[in-house]
Amino acid sequence: MRSIRDQAAIAGIGQTEYSRRSGRTVAALACQAIKSALDDAGLPAGDVDGLVRFDADLVGEAALIGSLGLTNVRWMSHTGYGGSGGNAVIVHAAAAIAAGAADVVVCYRALNGRSGQRFGRRDAAATVSGAEAFQAPWGMLAPVHQFGQFARRHMIEFGTTSEQFGRVAVSARRHASMNPRAVMRQPISLEDHQQSRLIADPLRLLDCCIETDGACAVVVVAAERARGLRQRPVWIRGGSQGSGSRTDGIVFRDDLATAESVHTARDVFRSAGLGPSDVDVVMIYDHFTPFVIFSLEAYGFCLRGEGGRFVESQRIDFDGDLPVNTHGGNLSEAYLQGLSHVIEGVRQLRGTSSAQVANAEIVLSCSSVAQLSAAVVLARD
Amino acid sequence: MRSIRDQAAIAGIGQTEYSRRSGRTVAALACQAIKSALDDAGLPAGDVDGLVRFDADLVGEAALIGSLGLTNVRWMSHTGYGGSGGNAVIVHAAAAIAAGAADVVVCYRALNGRSGQRFGRRDAAATVSGAEAFQAPWGMLAPVHQFGQFARRHMIEFGTTSEQFGRVAVSARRHASMNPRAVMRQPISLEDHQQSRLIADPLRLLDCCIETDGACAVVVVAAERARGLRQRPVWIRGGSQGSGSRTDGIVFRDDLATAESVHTARDVFRSAGLGPSDVDVVMIYDHFTPFVIFSLEAYGFCLRGEGGRFVESQRIDFDGDLPVNTHGGNLSEAYLQGLSHVIEGVRQLRGTSSAQVANAEIVLSCSSVAQLSAAVVLARD
Repeated sequence: MRSIRDQAAIAGIGQTEYSRRSGRTVAALACQAIKSALDDAGLPAGDVDGLVRFDADLVGEAALIGSLGLTNVRWMSHTGYGGSGGNAVIVHAAAAIAAGAADVVVCYRALNGRSGQRFGRRDAAATVSGAEAFQAPWGMLAPVHQFGQFARRHMIEFGTTSEQFGRVAVSARRHASMNPRAVMRQPISLEDHQQSRLIADPLRLLDCCIETDGACAVVVVAAERARGLRQRPVWIRGGSQGSGSRTDGIVFRDDLATAESVHTARDVFRSAGLGPSDVDVVMIYDHFTPFVIFSLEAYGFCLRGEGGRFVESQRIDFDGDLPVNTHGGNLSEAYLQGLSHVIEGVRQLRGTSSAQVANAEIVLSCSSVAQLSAAVVLARD
Repeated sequence: MRSIRDQAAIAGIGQTEYSRRSGRTVAALACQAIKSALDDAGLPAGDVDGLVRFDADLVGEAALIGSLGLTNVRWMSHTGYGGSGGNAVIVHAAAAIAAGAADVVVCYRALNGRSGQRFGRRDAAATVSGAEAFQAPWGMLAPVHQFGQFARRHMIEFGTTSEQFGRVAVSARRHASMNPRAVMRQPISLEDHQQSRLIADPLRLLDCCIETDGACAVVVVAAERARGLRQRPVWIRGGSQGSGSRTDGIVFRDDLATAESVHTARDVFRSAGLGPSDVDVVMIYDHFTPFVIFSLEAYGFCLRGEGGRFVESQRIDFDGDLPVNTHGGNLSEAYLQGLSHVIEGVRQLRGTSSAQVANAEIVLSCSSVAQLSAAVVLARD
């Protein structure tokens, strides 16, 4: 069967403390998160035979192999394009297992994203190349500059408002306020959002994700090893990466208001044999609030252009009918490029979230980063 | 079935001219090689739904998607650690296909390795980190410095000689002299090798691979699509990546004379259901001549320590009993980090090599880079 459906399960999750200044190397953070995830699964490090990492991660496999005492890693792969990585690493792990290339795969992301290199900043004198050369001269250097254009386009085409973006931020902070791991736990109001300063019009400070230090790890095991471990398995029911076309920057795109993740949405649901109506909880890569709205549209939870109105009703709160980012997401819990979203998805399916959704059986974790995207469907045992 | 065995086939191969100065961007080189490989297969670019690249490649997926007119790429992955990449990309492609994540996967490598950034050079003032921090202060900066230590250790333990290294260089040049694509085609003698200058004792100039500009691409398709295309398929019978343990630099290793690719050898042959005696032609990642000898040992073609004597008899020439690198390899054809070796393996199995081995049915392409390795077994239809 050429499919990853239920061929692999998430057996362990782990993370370090999330902070503004870890005071430690990214290698140390990665090892701690991985050890924690292996302990959670009840597996010794020597059983690990696959490693999947984000391209941007600074912790290489060779360093981990030595530090963790691994004896032979049979699968190593990297995913690119930041925000899609949190789900793409899970797709890679499941594919490696389905292909027989590994049995116990560790996915990880470690970064000193606040005390070290900050993604949100960009030196104006930085070297640019490729499509970026058409954008940088106009001041589009940091992600917020580029992604703000998508937000403005959605406002122009569909009447989406800054207040609707704010609803996403308020919901995320509400969830974070319940989450002891979250870095930003002080509840905010819609008024706080509206009064926060403009960073790149139309995006305000509270539309932007936070920057943090920390690490996450997820242990994925083959189906036949998933039972009898320390935790009840969370099944990887489906997954996909997706690109669409013309994703090289903003200037070449036909349309800023349509996310190419519509392809990813089609593929991930086909892969899982499920549809949007089967999903109980959604994890969405929320580098900026509007992308939660775009993803709700792209993944079929509402019609195109209706995402803004969809979030107005607090339906995306943990006690609403389509809870989103019950950990507080990138906006308020921590920024681990989306891998923390997968961990929260697992918590929901284990029944251990700090903002638990009753009877959560199916979780979609997805990204719509206006570049390359990825998504996974997770299922309760 | 959790296996990649015969789930996918190589349907197309392509490359640019190999040169010392391409005068073109790496993106242009990549597109040319990929177009050539798709033409070879008889497939339109729009059918491509997977891209696998070397981590070190400077051509990102987003740029290719726009330039080639791809509409949705469902699988994207990167392999790390240079020399293992040539085979690792094929393992990734086969795994993606076996897992149902893609049907038509393009693997590519493009670099201006001579006119642009040269791998063989390292700025003495470069920033070092990790295990390298224990080596760099002693002058071990470029690959030749590090890999020379492995060569010396093999000489000490097993009596391997510089002349035996030279046999590898002479054989590679003989093959390159028959290959119109090769950059270095002037035959050399063992005496030429012995008189070439020392670069990093015991490695001489003619022990080192060349540096070139160019690009290679390989099109891998699902088994059910492999027949009826322009070329007879070459089956991916097995493949594996492998690490061993303590691969982070030289200083932490227990033993410099044993390649960790013994793990990769065991796994690749198990994956293929074959053994060394089934192999007709071997492609070995030859960044430095001694590693051909180490790989012959690690992959079971001779006993440990006997690789030096094995190559003395010209058995590795195309008209010997175990032909190796019939294109001329990294040493004399071109340096594309091992992907050109896979292309030559396909040529042998199609019967179109410039140094054709009669009745070649099984090719092993492998690396033993004293870090992380990978190997694939290719089979004639």
